[in-house]
Amino acid sequence: MNCLVTGGSGFIGKNLVKRLNQNGHIVKIYDRKEGNDILDLGKLINEMEGCNTVFHLAARADLRSNTGEPYYVYENNTVGTANVLEAMRRNKVKRIVFASSGSVYGEPNVFPTPEDAPFPKQTSIYAASKLAGEGLIQAYQEAFGIQGYIFRFVSNVGEHYSHGHVLDFYKKLKANPEEIQILGNGKQRKSYVYVGDTIEAIMTALQTTSGGVFNLGTDEYCNVFESLGYISERMGIKDLHIKTETNERGWVGDSPFIYLDCKKLNNLGWYPKLTIRQGIERTIDYFKEIGL
Amino acid sequence: MNCLVTGGSGFIGKNLVKRLNQNGHIVKIYDRKEGNDILDLGKLINEMEGCNTVFHLAARADLRSNTGEPYYVYENNTVGTANVLEAMRRNKVKRIVFASSGSVYGEPNVFPTPEDAPFPKQTSIYAASKLAGEGLIQAYQEAFGIQGYIFRFVSNVGEHYSHGHVLDFYKKLKANPEEIQILGNGKQRKSYVYVGDTIEAIMTALQTTSGGVFNLGTDEYCNVFESLGYISERMGIKDLHIKTETNERGWVGDSPFIYLDCKKLNNLGWYPKLTIRQGIERTIDYFKEIGL
Repeated sequence: MNCLVTGGSGFIGKNLVKRLNQNGHIVKIYDRKEGNDILDLGKLINEMEGCNTVFHLAARADLRSNTGEPYYVYENNTVGTANVLEAMRRNKVKRIVFASSGSVYGEPNVFPTPEDAPFPKQTSIYAASKLAGEGLIQAYQEAFGIQGYIFRFVSNVGEHYSHGHVLDFYKKLKANPEEIQILGNGKQRKSYVYVGDTIEAIMTALQTTSGGVFNLGTDEYCNVFESLGYISERMGIKDLHIKTETNERGWVGDSPFIYLDCKKLNNLGWYPKLTIRQGIERTIDYFKEIGL
Repeated sequence: MNCLVTGGSGFIGKNLVKRLNQNGHIVKIYDRKEGNDILDLGKLINEMEGCNTVFHLAARADLRSNTGEPYYVYENNTVGTANVLEAMRRNKVKRIVFASSGSVYGEPNVFPTPEDAPFPKQTSIYAASKLAGEGLIQAYQEAFGIQGYIFRFVSNVGEHYSHGHVLDFYKKLKANPEEIQILGNGKQRKSYVYVGDTIEAIMTALQTTSGGVFNLGTDEYCNVFESLGYISERMGIKDLHIKTETNERGWVGDSPFIYLDCKKLNNLGWYPKLTIRQGIERTIDYFKEIGL
């Protein structure tokens, strides 16, 4: 493949680029950390020349920025995706892998949630921007013969993890190993997947299908107390006092339960190799390795 | 109400504005025909001052422009809706009525299609832009306490009809009452609703609910031959020779069957007063009245 990876300097991007390089693919990174702007359509068109596959991972990913700068998050993610697709159309690039999110299901009634769950109601700006991206990819697929691989991720953990509750908890526990304050009542249940398994899932779908929508997660979930337990134990902390809030959600738009049905990917032969606990432990080990 | 109506000079907008004025509401029109640009966030913020309800109808509405200028359609509709919501947030406007479309269901498997149909795959840029708008409204609803009234319209007919197959057929039949070429094989089945019934449905939902997603159509559908029959008969044409194409869809992204389950609105006491045939006949009468 001759690939462009938007967000190639981000958490999942770094892992993906490493894997693509190992497999001998030509890889170009398009990332704001490298001075590239996803809102600059002209530049995107130029940079995409010669590519045959785009991995579109670039996004403002912090769900908790929901209420602060909604317009900014939405513009970056939605117009960003529109720009990527338009640059693909102009360059006749026919394949896109898109990092969507399990949060597009809003607060579903069906668990584990399958890809064809009932038409969801959006609960966060971030998820709404991902849903918008999905729809636009599908429309370009229909109109211009683009192959779209849409992955609805649960939260990823592992090497190069850069934001989210595992890092937040790690930093807080380093500062104070005796007591920690968590967002919400701690009963929020989430599924997590190891980023190495995510990359493997993407490669499997690329090799065995011509596109589609794929849930990407593990067949388990844990609540905040459990994941905090994995983190603190790996850090060697005992006797931790946990302070909770009373609200069911950690922040506006936080989904109290995320657990995806991943049979579609499993039927392609992909299964995650790491459990949630193992993925989180590897994340903590990574923090230690880089001296965090 | 103190209302801003985007797209207030368009087909549905004109009918809505008339009704709002009749009911004694304060109405301001924001429409590109009046020199207003939905992409001009600053102007939108200024114009919205003092409003308590926004009717957001402005959109590039021609589904058949799908393959020509996708970026333009998407930008206008999606960034347009983002701008409207952001202007509402800045002005603390708490209520929005949004003209979405039954085309967000893509090519559904369930007929009549209910609001909670399985998670759809988008088949047109227009529909993708409407889905994006819906999601963003719901996210703003969650984050900023905005009340969103999202209506998934079937095609509207009636006074001020300005584009679509009824006008196309009317013009073609005026030019040549003996023979007509139609797009696709003519077996596409669509539901239509009279615009007066649409306005009534919106008013009913505003009065009786605090928001939500509502299918808005009639409990019937017709194929292209049937609607062409209603049109040609109303024009006094007999012995029409109809030339068809072989394809199932009239254009890229055309859905071969649109038929919505409108029980949710019916349960509020709303039922359309006109049949599809009556709505189309009234549209033809309108064309004659304005000398088309």
